[in-house]
Amino acid sequence: MSDVVTPVLKRHLLSIDDLTREQAILILDTADELARISDAPIKKLPTLRGRTVVNLFYEDSTRTRISFEAAAKRLSADVINFSAKGSSVSKGESLKDTALTLQAMGADAVILRHSASGAAHRLAEWTKGSVINAGDGTHEHPTQALLDAFTIRKHLNKNPEQNGGVGADLTGVNVAIVGDILHSRVARSNVLLLSRLGAKVTLVAPPTLLPVGVSDWPVSISYDFNNAIGECDVVMMLRLQLERMKSAFFPSAREYSRLFGLDMERLAKGKKSPLILHPGPINRGLEISAECADSADSLILEQVTNGVSIRMAVLYLLLGGADA
Amino acid sequence: MSDVVTPVLKRHLLSIDDLTREQAILILDTADELARISDAPIKKLPTLRGRTVVNLFYEDSTRTRISFEAAAKRLSADVINFSAKGSSVSKGESLKDTALTLQAMGADAVILRHSASGAAHRLAEWTKGSVINAGDGTHEHPTQALLDAFTIRKHLNKNPEQNGGVGADLTGVNVAIVGDILHSRVARSNVLLLSRLGAKVTLVAPPTLLPVGVSDWPVSISYDFNNAIGECDVVMMLRLQLERMKSAFFPSAREYSRLFGLDMERLAKGKKSPLILHPGPINRGLEISAECADSADSLILEQVTNGVSIRMAVLYLLLGGADA
Amino acid sequence: MSDVVTPVLKRHLLSIDDLTREQAILILDTADELARISDAPIKKLPTLRGRTVVNLFYEDSTRTRISFEAAAKRLSADVINFSAKGSSVSKGESLKDTALTLQAMGADAVILRHSASGAAHRLAEWTKGSVINAGDGTHEHPTQALLDAFTIRKHLNKNPEQNGGVGADLTGVNVAIVGDILHSRVARSNVLLLSRLGAKVTLVAPPTLLPVGVSDWPVSISYDFNNAIGECDVVMMLRLQLERMKSAFFPSAREYSRLFGLDMERLAKGKKSPLILHPGPINRGLEISAECADSADSLILEQVTNGVSIRMAVLYLLLGGADA
Repeated sequence: MSDVVTPVLKRHLLSIDDLTREQAILILDTADELARISDAPIKKLPTLRGRTVVNLFYEDSTRTRISFEAAAKRLSADVINFSAKGSSVSKGESLKDTALTLQAMGADAVILRHSASGAAHRLAEWTKGSVINAGDGTHEHPTQALLDAFTIRKHLNKNPEQNGGVGADLTGVNVAIVGDILHSRVARSNVLLLSRLGAKVTLVAPPTLLPVGVSDWPVSISYDFNNAIGECDVVMMLRLQLERMKSAFFPSAREYSRLFGLDMERLAKGKKSPLILHPGPINRGLEISAECADSADSLILEQVTNGVSIRMAVLYLLLGGADA
Repeated sequence: MSDVVTPVLKRHLLSIDDLTREQAILILDTADELARISDAPIKKLPTLRGRTVVNLFYEDSTRTRISFEAAAKRLSADVINFSAKGSSVSKGESLKDTALTLQAMGADAVILRHSASGAAHRLAEWTKGSVINAGDGTHEHPTQALLDAFTIRKHLNKNPEQNGGVGADLTGVNVAIVGDILHSRVARSNVLLLSRLGAKVTLVAPPTLLPVGVSDWPVSISYDFNNAIGECDVVMMLRLQLERMKSAFFPSAREYSRLFGLDMERLAKGKKSPLILHPGPINRGLEISAECADSADSLILEQVTNGVSIRMAVLYLLLGGADA
Repeated sequence: MSDVVTPVLKRHLLSIDDLTREQAILILDTADELARISDAPIKKLPTLRGRTVVNLFYEDSTRTRISFEAAAKRLSADVINFSAKGSSVSKGESLKDTALTLQAMGADAVILRHSASGAAHRLAEWTKGSVINAGDGTHEHPTQALLDAFTIRKHLNKNPEQNGGVGADLTGVNVAIVGDILHSRVARSNVLLLSRLGAKVTLVAPPTLLPVGVSDWPVSISYDFNNAIGECDVVMMLRLQLERMKSAFFPSAREYSRLFGLDMERLAKGKKSPLILHPGPINRGLEISAECADSADSLILEQVTNGVSIRMAVLYLLLGGADA
């Protein structure tokens, strides 16, 4: 039984599938502890002093890169940014040779963002350092799912005696994930993690934006947001990828917005005043109205804050534990 | 009366108008003190350890970015560079959402360079951290004005007993600002600061390069550089924005150079051998001859050095004071 | 005689010609010592705390930039990256003014990569800080030659009693450098260093890819790789610059590969199973087969590791010694 497995992490974090329920809870609990140093006068721990963390980004993602950079620096690691544009990569160097080179330079962890699904798994085969998947194609984005779970757990356990939910999972929580599930690594990682932690997940999307085989996922499906929102504790809105509009996955942005966007009117249909999550950056007025995004129930900015804590926890557990 | 106000700075530095005479002098005096650590064997103070400073640059300006980066690192802050090109910004994220995201990640200060006048003020409305305006459109560039004033004060008080002018203002100093006043944030910030510190400012430019309403500014106007240079203690040359040549603000670069450029012949017309300032990067042979730029009276490189000290002082006073 | 000269380095490292045999050995020995901190739990020395190192790169070279960045950070220096694209340089600032600006900001060392041969020498004339040539046109790339020599020395002295060759030179070692010698700064620096350290160098290339005047170099020439490989202890393969294919320096990539590429068949013709070096990034299947690149005799990745140690040694000796 997985219950008796000591929750020590694998060397890499490539997918939520790398984590047992206990390991996932360990990450959330560690993040909780590390979040407290943000309140300290000096927001810095010496844990990863002398360790080198490389941000290897083949796709632009300033907010994810900065989140990892801030997390690593608060743990005193040295951070090297490697934007694959205008690098050896443009001279045709393969991902493998780049990986081996970074390892040879002494990189203790490589944080990879890549447009190809599976890229992080390939990288992990080649390198002895830790690989953290910061988004690979339409596959996974595990730290995003972890920060989402962390944010939900904290808010459903706001009573001081509950201590922010430390040690707890998400049993009994109803989460609706809304939007372009088909192309979303955020959705994929969240489905895995939320269900592993005991939450009940409903995917809300037009049929064209659901992946083949979704019937095998541990989720319910709804095509009607108005109906689905009734039972939600949490609505997780996905970013509308405007570049996908061209492929005619749905008739128009306005049509999408009307059926699958979140606005105050639709929010009022929820019985429980659900918490609002969004991985950012948001398209105000498309998948979410400005009013919703800025409302009291919106946790969008808190997700950003929690992202730094989760990434600190992951770096800490993957790299800091080696010597302990 | 402003005389009795304790010179504690506001949270932001958006405009010279944010500073009283006393606060401006406090910054200059602090810079003077911090400049001394550049002579120490270890040029590093622990003051901002654990603080995160973000360089948010929507326009290229390597020298300003590096100056702030060096200043923040000498105070032991963690620095994160965010060039807005190829970032979420290109996915259409608004300045507001970027600001809120950086704040949520724990940025203690955001240093903003933006092409829109007023951008820094907008940013400051949205974020709890400190905002430092590193140039917004044609509006202001306050740290440039501060480093210019610091450089002038130091040189007019070279006598060791005068202690580099610590505590002093610039009463009685004659400064000519020469060139494209209309589009220059450097000129605008300098007019405000120099006059606040008691200097007498003369703007030297063709009428097409003076802003509407300049008659309300606390300055004299001259269209004749040869005449104006006679009384100057300091000539501050502005960079010729070559991209503005197309708009026909003046007939030709040669014509501009002949009338409003600084060369040794014109310099000789000055009665007092004026100090030469320029915010850089210079166009040798256009607004200033190479001979003048490299002459003994040129303080152009010293301005660069002083820029680091001024930015250390601003960061120190805005961020370091919070805990003190 | 150079034998009695104390091996203290010059202020800059622009060319292998800046180094006597003794100074070169000092760098290799220092790298050997510094390499050991990579095995320590905390891979960080305080030596360059408070020093500022600027990576000034006018050409893309992520691997060289990262190698210097990692080296400087392990010595606790502050590192500022300055990619000349999209900087003041695009506003027409000259290398001289950039150099003077960086110096004025307090840069203790500038690491320069530039497309113009001789750029590093020019930079050194203008700045008081140390200049390290990280590749200038087709001229030199001295730290690459140093890391190659370090790698060779280490492997030819693997017996523990030989202590990795500390103190030794490369007398009696046969090295073949193979490929586009004409355009290679790596070849140029290696010829100088290897011969200075007593190695016997053979250049293997088609006549079109050998420089004018090569007959005056301290090397043998061979047009026949099959023949030359017989006596080699080391084969150093050069990267095929694909962009040079257009200039018809050789008929086709396949032709080049057949005559001057390294594959297992050709390797078997070597009497001594030579060590394989390549500066990277490699073109698998062009100048070197994947099988050779990944074989047990390939030191390509070890070169990368050693590159960090060599750059630490150079920074340490140029900057750290000043106070000692």
